[in-house]
Amino acid sequence: MTAEMFPKEKTIDLRKKHIGPSCKVFFSHDPIKIVRAKGQYMYDENGVRYLDCINNVAHVGHSHPMVVKAGAEQMELLNTNSRFLHDNLVQYAQRLQATLPEKLSVCYFVNSGSEANDLALRLAWEYTGHKDVITLDNAYHGHVSSLINISPYKFHQLANAEQSKSVHVALSPDLYRGNYRQDHPDPATAYADDVNNLIQKAHEKGHKVAAFIAESLQSCGGQVIPPAGYFQKVAQHVHRAGGLFIADEVQVGFGRVGTHFWAFQLQGEDFVPDIVTMGKPIGNGHPMSCVVTTREVAEAFKNSGMEYFNTFGGNPVSCAIGLAVLDVIEKEDLQGNALRVGGYLTRLLEQQKEKHPLVGDVRGRGLFVGAELVRDRVKLTPATAEAQDIIYKLKEQHILLSADGPHRNVLKFKPPMCFSEEDADMVVEKIDQILTDIEKALGLQMPSTVHTENGSRKRNICGHRRFNLRKTDVIIQME
Amino acid sequence: MTAEMFPKEKTIDLRKKHIGPSCKVFFSHDPIKIVRAKGQYMYDENGVRYLDCINNVAHVGHSHPMVVKAGAEQMELLNTNSRFLHDNLVQYAQRLQATLPEKLSVCYFVNSGSEANDLALRLAWEYTGHKDVITLDNAYHGHVSSLINISPYKFHQLANAEQSKSVHVALSPDLYRGNYRQDHPDPATAYADDVNNLIQKAHEKGHKVAAFIAESLQSCGGQVIPPAGYFQKVAQHVHRAGGLFIADEVQVGFGRVGTHFWAFQLQGEDFVPDIVTMGKPIGNGHPMSCVVTTREVAEAFKNSGMEYFNTFGGNPVSCAIGLAVLDVIEKEDLQGNALRVGGYLTRLLEQQKEKHPLVGDVRGRGLFVGAELVRDRVKLTPATAEAQDIIYKLKEQHILLSADGPHRNVLKFKPPMCFSEEDADMVVEKIDQILTDIEKALGLQMPSTVHTENGSRKRNICGHRRFNLRKTDVIIQME
Repeated sequence: MTAEMFPKEKTIDLRKKHIGPSCKVFFSHDPIKIVRAKGQYMYDENGVRYLDCINNVAHVGHSHPMVVKAGAEQMELLNTNSRFLHDNLVQYAQRLQATLPEKLSVCYFVNSGSEANDLALRLAWEYTGHKDVITLDNAYHGHVSSLINISPYKFHQLANAEQSKSVHVALSPDLYRGNYRQDHPDPATAYADDVNNLIQKAHEKGHKVAAFIAESLQSCGGQVIPPAGYFQKVAQHVHRAGGLFIADEVQVGFGRVGTHFWAFQLQGEDFVPDIVTMGKPIGNGHPMSCVVTTREVAEAFKNSGMEYFNTFGGNPVSCAIGLAVLDVIEKEDLQGNALRVGGYLTRLLEQQKEKHPLVGDVRGRGLFVGAELVRDRVKLTPATAEAQDIIYKLKEQHILLSADGPHRNVLKFKPPMCFSEEDADMVVEKIDQILTDIEKALGLQMPSTVHTENGSRKRNICGHRRFNLRKTDVIIQME
Repeated sequence: MTAEMFPKEKTIDLRKKHIGPSCKVFFSHDPIKIVRAKGQYMYDENGVRYLDCINNVAHVGHSHPMVVKAGAEQMELLNTNSRFLHDNLVQYAQRLQATLPEKLSVCYFVNSGSEANDLALRLAWEYTGHKDVITLDNAYHGHVSSLINISPYKFHQLANAEQSKSVHVALSPDLYRGNYRQDHPDPATAYADDVNNLIQKAHEKGHKVAAFIAESLQSCGGQVIPPAGYFQKVAQHVHRAGGLFIADEVQVGFGRVGTHFWAFQLQGEDFVPDIVTMGKPIGNGHPMSCVVTTREVAEAFKNSGMEYFNTFGGNPVSCAIGLAVLDVIEKEDLQGNALRVGGYLTRLLEQQKEKHPLVGDVRGRGLFVGAELVRDRVKLTPATAEAQDIIYKLKEQHILLSADGPHRNVLKFKPPMCFSEEDADMVVEKIDQILTDIEKALGLQMPSTVHTENGSRKRNICGHRRFNLRKTDVIIQME
C-alpha cells in the first residue's frame, strides 16, 4: 500500500482551501481517495479495491506497464517541442493515419480534447470563411470558452446563459427520448432535416455555416447512438452550405465501439468527416490529443498566414506514449475485447430491462453502454434520484459508475478496455440487487408477460405501448 | 547515441505528408533533428551537441533526472483525474501558493498556457459580468481562438485580420522603441494613462472592461520590460472600471527573473494581480499549467452554477512532476543561478553594445534577456535580416538562439536555468565574431568614444542623441 502524505481529512481541507470550488469531486459527501490503480481496478488509501466502470481515459488499463515504460524511457532521453524534427512525431502521425480513411491525412498534435475541438473550429472558420456552428442538443465539446459556446450540456448549467447568435442547436438524434424514435420510419432523415432547417434559418439571417460538430456517439448527452446514415445526410446538407463536418471522437475513439476503431465508422464506410478530433484515451491519461483533417483544409489554414505552434503538442514523450497505447490495443486485442465484453455487458443489462421496470432503455456499442432509467416507460419520466441512488450504493460496494445525460438518469459504462466478463457479471449483479430494493420500496412491479407468436416474450401493459408498434424492434430490444 | 527510426530525409518527408503545414520547424531550409538532451545541451542524430539558449520550457535542464524519476514513479502508481482526492494535487497547490502573495490562494490545474489564459478570461468574465479585454500591442497569450483574439502578435499575421470589438490594444510599455522611452520623465504613468484612455473609450461605446491582461515581461513581443510601477497604475484604472488584472507568467515565471520567483514581483511588493497564469516551465516540458486567483473570484466563478472539469488537469503525474520542478529549483538554487548568470550574460551583451553599432539595446532580468539589433541607433531601423543571419550562423556553430519581437530583430535569450557563465561566454563570443563580420560587410563602424565627467565612456555621435538626454540612463545602459 502506498504511504499517504496527509490523512484524508487534511487532504479534503487543503482541497477546500486551494482548489477552485467549481472543481467537483465524485461523491462529494464522502469522496474517495485513490492512491494507486492497475488495469480496471483502483485502490484507496486503505487498500480497498474499486472496480472502475467509468474511466475511459485509462483506456488500455490504469498504469499499463508498456505505456509507463515508453513514457519513462522517452522522458529520460528527450522532451522538447515540435520545431525540431523527431521520429516519434512522424511515426505516430503515420500510425494514426493508418487507422483512418485515406483523405484524413494531416495531423495537429495538441494537449487536450478541448484544445483539439477549438483548433477544429479554427480550421473550419479559416477554410470556409464562415462563422456559424451547428451543434447537437446536450453536446459537450470541452471547457475552453469557444467550446462552452457550442456545448449545451454546459451552457444550460449557467444561470444567465446567453446563447451565441452564431451557434445553432440541432435535435439530439436520440431514438429513445428524442423527437423521432424507434417507431419513426426514417429517423436518420428526420434528424438530418432538422440540421438542414437550421442551415436555412441561418441563411435567412444572412449567416453562413462553418461547421457541424458532433460526438460520434454522445457521451455526457446520455450515451446516445445516432441512427446509421444520419451523419451522411447531415454531411450532405452541411457541405451544400459550404461547411465542414467535425466528428468529435474525444470520448469514443480508439476501438471502444468494438466493431470499428473510430465511432464515426459505425455510420457506414461511405461516411468520412472533414475533421476528426481525439482526446481522452489517446495517451491513457497523459495530457495529449490530436486533430486530423484533409490536405485541403490544412492548406487553407496555412494560407491564412498564421503559424500554428503548440508548446507541448506532439512532444517526443507524448508521441512515445501514444505509440505505446496503439501497440497495447493491438497486442492485447482490446478492440476485440470491447466487442466481446461490451456485447456481453449489453446483454446482461437487457436482461435487467426485462426484469426491472426502472430500466427503460439499454443501448451500447462495444464498451460504450448506457442504461436509461425511467419511472414510467410511456412518459419516460427520468428516474434521476434512483440513478443517483444506484451510483452511491454501488460506490459503497466498491464499484465506480456514473449517471449522466440531460436528466442524469443514464447509467454510463465506459470502463478501461481490459474490462472482463467477470467484471460485467459483478456490476450487473449488484445493480440487479439495488434495483430490486429500490423497486420494492417504490412498489414498482414488472407486469406479467405474454408470449408473442414467434416465442419471444412481450410486455402487455400500456407502459409498453411504444414497443408494440413495431414488433421487430421489440424483439431486438428484449433479447 | 540513440538509434534513429528513420533517416533524416524520411523524417522530413513524413512530416510534410502528415503534420499540419502551419506547424513550422526551426531553420526550415535545414532543420535540426534532436534525439536527446541533457541540461542546457541538445544532441542531434550524429551526436553533435547544441547549446540551447532558447528553451525556457526545459526550465531546470533537459531530462532532469529528479523530474524524470518523479514522473515515472507516479505513472507507475496512478494517473487519474481530479474528481478523486489525491495528495499530490493539494500538496502542489499548497507549494505553489507559498510562492505567491497570500490572497492568490485558489488554483485551477490545466494542461497548457493556452488553457490557463482562456480560463483566466472565463474567470474575469464571470466575476465582473463584463466582456471587454485590454491587451498589450505585440502580446502573445496562446493559440486557442479566444486568445488569438487578444494576441496582436498572432492576429497581425492574418491577411484578413478583423479585431474583435471587445478587444482593445494598449501601447506596449517598451522603453526602447515604444511611444514613451528612457528619456520620458514618467513612462509608467504615461503607458498606464493609455490603458485608462482605452477604458474611457470603451465606456463611451457602452462597453465594460472585464480584464487587462499582460505578460509580466513581454517575450514574443520583444523581451520588453515594463517600467516599475506601471502595473500598479494600470491595476488602479482597471479596478476602478470593475475589471481584473491578469498577469501572464507563462513564459517568465518560476524564478527566471532571478531576483523574484514571479516576474510581476519586479513591479514592487505593493502589486498583486487578481489572476496569475502559469505554463511552459511549470513541468519542464510535461503538458501542464495552472491558474491562481483570489477566493472572491473563485467563488464568483462557482456561483455561475457551472462545474469546471479538466480531464487531465491536476492529475497525480503532472503534480508529481510539478513538485519535482519546484524541488530542483530550490535544491540547485536555480533562481540564484539565473540572477548570477543572467547578470553576467547581460553585462557581456552590454559590452557588445559598446563595440557593435548593430546592438541598439540590451535589456534583461535574470535569464530573460534581449538584445535588440538596429541599423541606425537614432531611427531604430530594425536589423531584421542581420538578426536572422546571426541566428543561422550560430546554428552552424551549434548554438540555438532565436530572434523575436514585432520586427524579429531582438535576440532572445531564455535558456534552461542551469545555463552557466561559460555558456554565456561561448555564445557572446560567437555573436561578437558574427557581428564583426556582418558590420565589416556592411561597412558599419562604431564611432570614436569620449569620456564623460564621471569617467564612463559615452558615444559622441548623433546616433546617440537619445542617450545624451539623461546622463544617468546613459551610464546604466553603457556599463
